[in-house]
Amino acid sequence: MDFSSKLLENAVNEVSRLPGIGKRTALRLVLHLLKQPSDNTKYLSEALLHLRNDVKTCEKCHNISDTLLCDICNNPKRNPEIVCVVEDIRDVMAIESTSQFNGLYHVLGGKISPIEGIGPQNLQIESLVSKVEKGEVKELIFALSSTMEGDTTNFYIFKQIEKFEITTSTIARGISVGDELEYADEVTLGRSIVNRIPFEQSIRS
Amino acid sequence: MDFSSKLLENAVNEVSRLPGIGKRTALRLVLHLLKQPSDNTKYLSEALLHLRNDVKTCEKCHNISDTLLCDICNNPKRNPEIVCVVEDIRDVMAIESTSQFNGLYHVLGGKISPIEGIGPQNLQIESLVSKVEKGEVKELIFALSSTMEGDTTNFYIFKQIEKFEITTSTIARGISVGDELEYADEVTLGRSIVNRIPFEQSIRS
Repeated sequence: MDFSSKLLENAVNEVSRLPGIGKRTALRLVLHLLKQPSDNTKYLSEALLHLRNDVKTCEKCHNISDTLLCDICNNPKRNPEIVCVVEDIRDVMAIESTSQFNGLYHVLGGKISPIEGIGPQNLQIESLVSKVEKGEVKELIFALSSTMEGDTTNFYIFKQIEKFEITTSTIARGISVGDELEYADEVTLGRSIVNRIPFEQSIRS
Repeated sequence: MDFSSKLLENAVNEVSRLPGIGKRTALRLVLHLLKQPSDNTKYLSEALLHLRNDVKTCEKCHNISDTLLCDICNNPKRNPEIVCVVEDIRDVMAIESTSQFNGLYHVLGGKISPIEGIGPQNLQIESLVSKVEKGEVKELIFALSSTMEGDTTNFYIFKQIEKFEITTSTIARGISVGDELEYADEVTLGRSIVNRIPFEQSIRS
């Protein structure tokens, strides 16, 4: 691309470093900012800088937080003995939106992935094991995505904590509520038959 | 969406104000920045702010430029008597990349669109008519997109300049080079038959 302006070229290059944004999309976004009042660009830049420089991670669950202890860990109404292990803040937001979980979270910050060069030492696994070791946790719920990396991470953590007397569980996999059986994939449908639950339990939830 | 951090929420809100970027995509982009070195966010913010505050528009063709007169208008090898009328810098970049045009541009900054509240007074039409009036232009090439808005804008400009003795033309519409006829739409195929060119001319270009 041949830009007539170095300033424009520089801005497009920086925006196109974001994941999933190519040069054309970056140019479209940057030209949009040029058409808007300059305050919009100011607010955007400031919001990004403030976030990057001032955001903290909760020292207990490692979730993104403005304070040293996040709102969830700080809430006395939540049960600290049930801990749900998730990958990042998006999973926390998804589970929180269900209003079905009253325990705390432990945010790993990723999954073990040798291809991407992410090993156990890059994740918040040590602090999780130490929580279990101290007897703070009674039940650990694994809620990582069911991919090769997710399963590996679950298994790695499980091996480290199986010597302690705690309950471990994983979230149920099955057909989505409202989905037709004929369109479900075999693995999911198979799991939902193997892991069937008592009918009385299903009408209660 | 229920964010655990005001800083995060603020950044996601600002990013999702960009066109075509929803809250989920914004969250993905912002979390990506948090995983990268903080310098990346700094460079991105600075590039956007510099562009918005320091970029100029060429006083002759109104294209985006770092200087008062853009490189194209400033180039003595280009023919100032042929002027190509385009919507924005993306069209200039597209035509420049063909290396087939040696004249100058006139960037309107948009198209007449009553629905979006863009009238002739919001575009650089007056300065174009004044160029023609002063006798600076011998040929005007309309290169706006062939939509309702593009056609309206072409016609509006044409009406203002038809009293002056200049040549006007529009870029050729037809089947793309390499395309199969059977997949072309009727309007395009129809135009390419009506506006057929001598065979000798086609083998020369």
